[in-house]
Amino acid sequence: MDYKESGVDIDAGTQVVRRVQELARETFTRGVLSEIGSFGGLFQPDLADVGEPVLVSSADGVGTKLKIAFLTGRHRTVGRDLVNHCVNDILVQNARPLFFLDYLGTGKLSPTASAEVIQGVADGCRENGCALLGGETAEMPGFYADGEYDVVGFIVGIVDRSRLLDGQSIRPGDRLLGLSSAGLHTNGYSLARRALFDAMGLTVDSPFEEVSPAATVGDVLLAPHRSYLGVVGPLLDAGHVRGLAHITGGGLTDNVPRVLPAGTGVRIDRASWTVPPLFEILRREGQIPDEDMYRTFNMGLGMVVVCRESDVDRVRRLLVEAGEPEAPVIGEVVEGNGHVSYVG
Amino acid sequence: MDYKESGVDIDAGTQVVRRVQELARETFTRGVLSEIGSFGGLFQPDLADVGEPVLVSSADGVGTKLKIAFLTGRHRTVGRDLVNHCVNDILVQNARPLFFLDYLGTGKLSPTASAEVIQGVADGCRENGCALLGGETAEMPGFYADGEYDVVGFIVGIVDRSRLLDGQSIRPGDRLLGLSSAGLHTNGYSLARRALFDAMGLTVDSPFEEVSPAATVGDVLLAPHRSYLGVVGPLLDAGHVRGLAHITGGGLTDNVPRVLPAGTGVRIDRASWTVPPLFEILRREGQIPDEDMYRTFNMGLGMVVVCRESDVDRVRRLLVEAGEPEAPVIGEVVEGNGHVSYVG
Repeated sequence: MDYKESGVDIDAGTQVVRRVQELARETFTRGVLSEIGSFGGLFQPDLADVGEPVLVSSADGVGTKLKIAFLTGRHRTVGRDLVNHCVNDILVQNARPLFFLDYLGTGKLSPTASAEVIQGVADGCRENGCALLGGETAEMPGFYADGEYDVVGFIVGIVDRSRLLDGQSIRPGDRLLGLSSAGLHTNGYSLARRALFDAMGLTVDSPFEEVSPAATVGDVLLAPHRSYLGVVGPLLDAGHVRGLAHITGGGLTDNVPRVLPAGTGVRIDRASWTVPPLFEILRREGQIPDEDMYRTFNMGLGMVVVCRESDVDRVRRLLVEAGEPEAPVIGEVVEGNGHVSYVG
Repeated sequence: MDYKESGVDIDAGTQVVRRVQELARETFTRGVLSEIGSFGGLFQPDLADVGEPVLVSSADGVGTKLKIAFLTGRHRTVGRDLVNHCVNDILVQNARPLFFLDYLGTGKLSPTASAEVIQGVADGCRENGCALLGGETAEMPGFYADGEYDVVGFIVGIVDRSRLLDGQSIRPGDRLLGLSSAGLHTNGYSLARRALFDAMGLTVDSPFEEVSPAATVGDVLLAPHRSYLGVVGPLLDAGHVRGLAHITGGGLTDNVPRVLPAGTGVRIDRASWTVPPLFEILRREGQIPDEDMYRTFNMGLGMVVVCRESDVDRVRRLLVEAGEPEAPVIGEVVEGNGHVSYVG
């Protein structure tokens, strides 16, 4: 009996670790002091322009979107999902990413699939100027079905305390702008799979012309979670943002209230943006009530920006300059008790 | 079709989140600026005495030790395993913990088991003066067997760059001191389960008198991973440590070399400490060759301290003061090519 026989292949692990080291090295930014493989990853933040550094941190998974990766055998996008989700989570507090760590848990380690996942993580890190500082690849026999895995990301970013965004300056009359999502992002996949696979009888290989001319269901469902760093960063730098809500699990209904100060609520006009066909199909085929739709899916909006009414034009101009032409005003802040009411 | 029907119970999730918030609050240290539930956790490190702050970060899981938690229905210890493992991983670079985040992935969320896991994480955080700053609880239908889960921890600590410990000052002639482990810690469980359950026919409820008079197999296998912060911290503060190796997956054989500078190796005398009965039983009943034993299990030593020969007495005195009476000299640094050779 040796360790390999009991299901843990240390050498395959070593092979993956080496590949991860190569991929990680390509993401390294100036602050990185260590190579992956040290016990802990080392990062020295540049504090030159940060009076009171505050670290902002978040942990996330990809959820059952992973099932789509398993079904298609395409493992490179979920890593980007993970990074982008985490980047957005700290962006809403005006933090910029410093470094990222990942965890990959598998039953039996497939060096190919593992490398693809980490490649995606590295892609996402590079795109966001974030160093992939370390991680853990765990082979756990009997924990995951063959060919399956779970993947978790952890991000640390930084913001000057004086620039922390917490929504406390939001006031009734402020406007909500919606930034488009790239699809489901990483939420609502259990429900979507039921509607598309069980109710409609589609597979990941089915053409999905109603949503996109040349795309399959797999393509549409794997579309990576957008990072809003590039388009929202300039708004934040310009000081025009009073609040940001990352629309993840819980949809607009649960996420917008997370940034509202006491005594406020929001009214969202559902007629103010075009809900993409994917969501309409899910609603129709899954016979999903509106209340659940808006509490499960992002409905085409992955990030909500709150700004003063008088800043709306300025904000939209900056968004256009950053490559975001569409940013409909989807609602406004009202007096209330932290709830979203829908009209339209 | 609504979200609960597709396997994701948002209200049960909310219930767990509330409990996590209570538990986390008890771990909050001075630097914490946010309540759990913000998009990202906020931590403002005290940089008063840190000239060049370096962040040190690590991600870890508990591995198949979780199977023992599932078999016994005892979920509170694995959280401490997770925290202590992470604390040790950054301690070896002389970092002190700032904050921790956890991820709990399940198939169907059991509020009770989830709360127990997080309770253990909070226990570990409190014991190490580390804030539980955030985390994610993911319900992923079809990913994990009923009653099973995976749990991942992420730690961020801090060290002044001038005090970073990287083993580069280690020289031939230096001595290795071994600090006792509390059992398997978090490594070698797949192999241990084979030997104890399959080869010996034991269950988690079997008495395990050979190891401990009143303990069951479950008790012994669940013994939490030790944190060495309390005993090694004072050594580090006193400046007597040239290197530290946390003995995790890969055992002494793979972990000690991780801190050795080029041109050195170590000679370890296996007769210099008493390998606890648990490991002897695994060796005997699993018919596991010595080479695999020392590359899989910690063999009774969870941390190795490298110091100058002339500092050995001072180091041991400090260890005794910190409550660590036994710290055998287990070997010495020699000229070599990064390998461990065993004698005895």
